Formats: sequence, C-alpha cells, structure tokens
Amino acid sequence: MIVEILCIGTELLSGITLNTNAYWLCSEITNVGGVVRRVTVVRDDLSEISSAARESLARKPNILITTGGLGATYDDITFEGLAAALGKKVVLDSRAVEMLKKSYARHKLHYELTESRLKMACIPEGSTPIQNPVGSAPAIMEQADSISIFCLPGVPSEMKTIFKEHILQRIKKSVGKFVAEELNYNTRGLTEAMIAPVLIEIVKSHPKNMIYLKTHPRGYYRKKTPQIKIQMISRGDNEKEVKNRLAAISKVIEKEIVKRGGIIC
Amino acid sequence: MIVEILCIGTELLSGITLNTNAYWLCSEITNVGGVVRRVTVVRDDLSEISSAARESLARKPNILITTGGLGATYDDITFEGLAAALGKKVVLDSRAVEMLKKSYARHKLHYELTESRLKMACIPEGSTPIQNPVGSAPAIMEQADSISIFCLPGVPSEMKTIFKEHILQRIKKSVGKFVAEELNYNTRGLTEAMIAPVLIEIVKSHPKNMIYLKTHPRGYYRKKTPQIKIQMISRGDNEKEVKNRLAAISKVIEKEIVKRGGIIC
Repeated sequence: MIVEILCIGTELLSGITLNTNAYWLCSEITNVGGVVRRVTVVRDDLSEISSAARESLARKPNILITTGGLGATYDDITFEGLAAALGKKVVLDSRAVEMLKKSYARHKLHYELTESRLKMACIPEGSTPIQNPVGSAPAIMEQADSISIFCLPGVPSEMKTIFKEHILQRIKKSVGKFVAEELNYNTRGLTEAMIAPVLIEIVKSHPKNMIYLKTHPRGYYRKKTPQIKIQMISRGDNEKEVKNRLAAISKVIEKEIVKRGGIIC
Repeated sequence: MIVEILCIGTELLSGITLNTNAYWLCSEITNVGGVVRRVTVVRDDLSEISSAARESLARKPNILITTGGLGATYDDITFEGLAAALGKKVVLDSRAVEMLKKSYARHKLHYELTESRLKMACIPEGSTPIQNPVGSAPAIMEQADSISIFCLPGVPSEMKTIFKEHILQRIKKSVGKFVAEELNYNTRGLTEAMIAPVLIEIVKSHPKNMIYLKTHPRGYYRKKTPQIKIQMISRGDNEKEVKNRLAAISKVIEKEIVKRGGIIC
C-alpha cells in the first residue's frame, strides 16, 4: 500500500505554516502499515499543481492524497490543477452544491450561493464529492486507473476528519493485519559510526520493511561524550513474530553497545 | 532566486520526525526575498533520492538544497543518490577526510577512521566539501550548469549553521535589497467566500510576488459567527513603496470588511 502526499499552499513554502498535515498523515498511514513514498509541497500555482500531480500519478502509488486549495478564494485551485493533470475540466457538480448547502445549514448560515461559493463545488469531471463534516468546502475522490485520488482540505480538523472517515479504513483493509513494536535506547559513549556496522548487518539479514533501525545523534554529554538514540521498530502481520524479532534484535544491539564501550542510559 | 528543497529521511515519511528543517529553510529564504518553489521529501532509498534530485535539477532552480542522509549509518546515502542523478560516482575526498579529523579533534575524540567514518568523506566526484562546524559529517557544494547544489546534514543545529554560513549570503546577494511588511486582521462575521472577490481584485491589480493576500478560517465564534484571519504581506526592494502599498491595501480591505458586515477584532 504505497501512498503519495501532495500538499498545496504557498504558506507552506513561505515559512508561514509548519506542515503538520503531512506529518499527521504520515503517522496515521505508517501506523496501519501503509508506506508513504513521497511528500511533495507546491505553491498555489496552476502549473506547479498540475505538474506535481502528473508526476505523482506517473509513479503509480495506490493512493494519492492532496491537501489544501479547496476553499473559496482566488488561490484555491487544487481542483483545476488536478483536472489539468488528468486532461479533464472542472464542472459545477450538483451533489457538491447540495453538500455546500448542508454545511451552511449546519451552522444555520443563510448564504447566497455566490460565484466564490459555487467555485468550491466545481470539481474535476467524473470525480465524486465528499461532504465536509467540519467546514464547508467539499473534498473529492477520483479514480485514475488503479490510483485512488483524494483531495482533502488544508484546515487540519477538516482534513483529519475526512481522512479518518474515507481513507483510513481503505488503507487498513488493503494492508490487512499489521502490528508494529518500537523500542528505543538512549546511549552514551557511542557515535553513529561506532554502531553503524552492527545495524547494517541486522538490516541486511531481514526482509525490507520488517525492521527499521535508526540512530539519532543527541549531542555530547559534558561537551565530550557522544550521545545517540537507537531506534528499533519491528513490523509485520503476526504479533508474536514482531515481538520476538524486536526482542532478538535489541539483545544483539545491547551486547554490541557494551562491547563498543557505550552504556544505555 | 528560485530554490528547491529536497529532504531525505524515512523518519520524515513515517510520522516519526516533523519536518521542521523545511519550515525553517522556507522561512529564512522567504525573509530575504528568495522563492521556495517546491519541497520534496523522499525515503532513504537510492533510486528515490536520485530520481527526486534528477527531477528537481530538470526544473532548473537557482539553488537546490538537500537535507539529511550525510551520516555514517547504512541508510545515509544522499551523496550516492546525488552522484547517480549527476551521472557521477562518489570518491573518497582528502579534504573531507581532513574536515572529519578536525571535527573529531574539536571534541577531543581520538577516533580511528573506520570504513563507516570514511563513508562520510566519500562525496560526488568534483564537488566541494564544507566543514561541519557543529557535528562531524561534512556537507558539500556542487555546481551543475547554472544550478548550485548544497547537501546539508539533517540534524537541525548543523543544517542551520551551514545554511547561514554558506547559502544565506548567496541568496541575499542575488536577490538584492528586499523588504517585506506584514499586517493581519482577525475578523468576525465574514467567511472566506465573502471577502474572496475583494482579494482577487487586489491581487490582479498588482505584479506577482509584490503582495500576498491569504485568508485563514478560524472556526466559529459561539458556534455561529464565522471568523477568519486576513493576512497581508507587501514585498519589494523599496521600503517606502512596500509600506505605502500595504497601507493602501489594508485601507481597502478594512472598508470592505465593514461593508460586508464583518468586524475587525
């Protein structure tokens, strides 16, 4: 289950907004066994959006999720960008109009459907609108050959709700049973280079994606003694196997830490 | 001055690490008048890194900055990925070896130059190593036709220091004098759609990049009255003009907020 994420928003590339949406999505997808292969962030620019979407589709992920650019303002052009990438046009969708009305009614807002508001219901031809249960702009779902495309709003609460309701189950179902166990050692007296040969041996002796080993430098203790965190994650579809694998790996690493002059704090 | 950022690290796509590096770089670059056109995040995978680098180079930014993957562990393969993208190989660079030695000496560490450590000094043929003044792994600078490529470490303190010492001035010099002024209105009683036609008119009547207008939904006051933040940024090379432009725009927007039934909080 390979997922790509395309985040759309000039604010993300101007240092105005920290991209917590991508972080949250990566975490949710990884936690159920999906693999996020790439995150791309582009500005609110039609040709940038359409090129990035086209490139992502050419890499054939199982799912492409976009965030942002679904609103009523001039720079919300995700649907136009995606439509261009798919060689389609955007059309006013009556189901999306109804969803907009429902959203306004929820807040007891009696809004006229002005041009700016109807823009939110102009979706790529043939795509399926998704009710926004938090804000107003509908999301969409679109199928391009084997790729499922979801365009989600950029507002985190809206994005999260729609992801949980419409995408998470799909990923879970496709991945099947999935468990992950994690263990971390904070060590002193070792550098990444000192433990690197051990890690590479362990990684080489396991199938890809079953284990994840990573060292994180954590500066120097009293300006002299190097500190690193060693992170170990075991993944798979059998809980017992996953746990046993993690236990076996951590035992090897514990021994090697001591052997190489390090201590676990 | 168009910049692209390529962040390398499986931890960034697994929801383990929030990509604050990209956020910080975008902010620094924007603040001196540079434009970040795209951020791409890929896993520690040779073909992913080399494809992403190749694609970025084909878009011909002025500068390509990569972060992460310079360390001593098995999954630090940024140099190999970049070299593959450039049709080069990595070679042990004697200057980089000296830099490594200098870094260890700084911490009074008497390390043997093992294979794992020397890996950090194996850089793309023809590139220039850059001393890491905080950690050990050297960064590199590489010129590919008109594109300057910088590979920076993923550890934020190391990345920031090298960026400030080697890249920031280059961007500043190329951009020339640059000022930006920002003003924000928190409003109540308006939706994005209600102010959208005003924003589009203002944006249309100014050259691209001189102004940035953006509305941010801020939920509902007492569950009923919509709240939005209107963000206005004026940019240019003349302080007086930038300020006057912002003042003129904010005056128009103030009037329109009131006219459309909103208030500024």
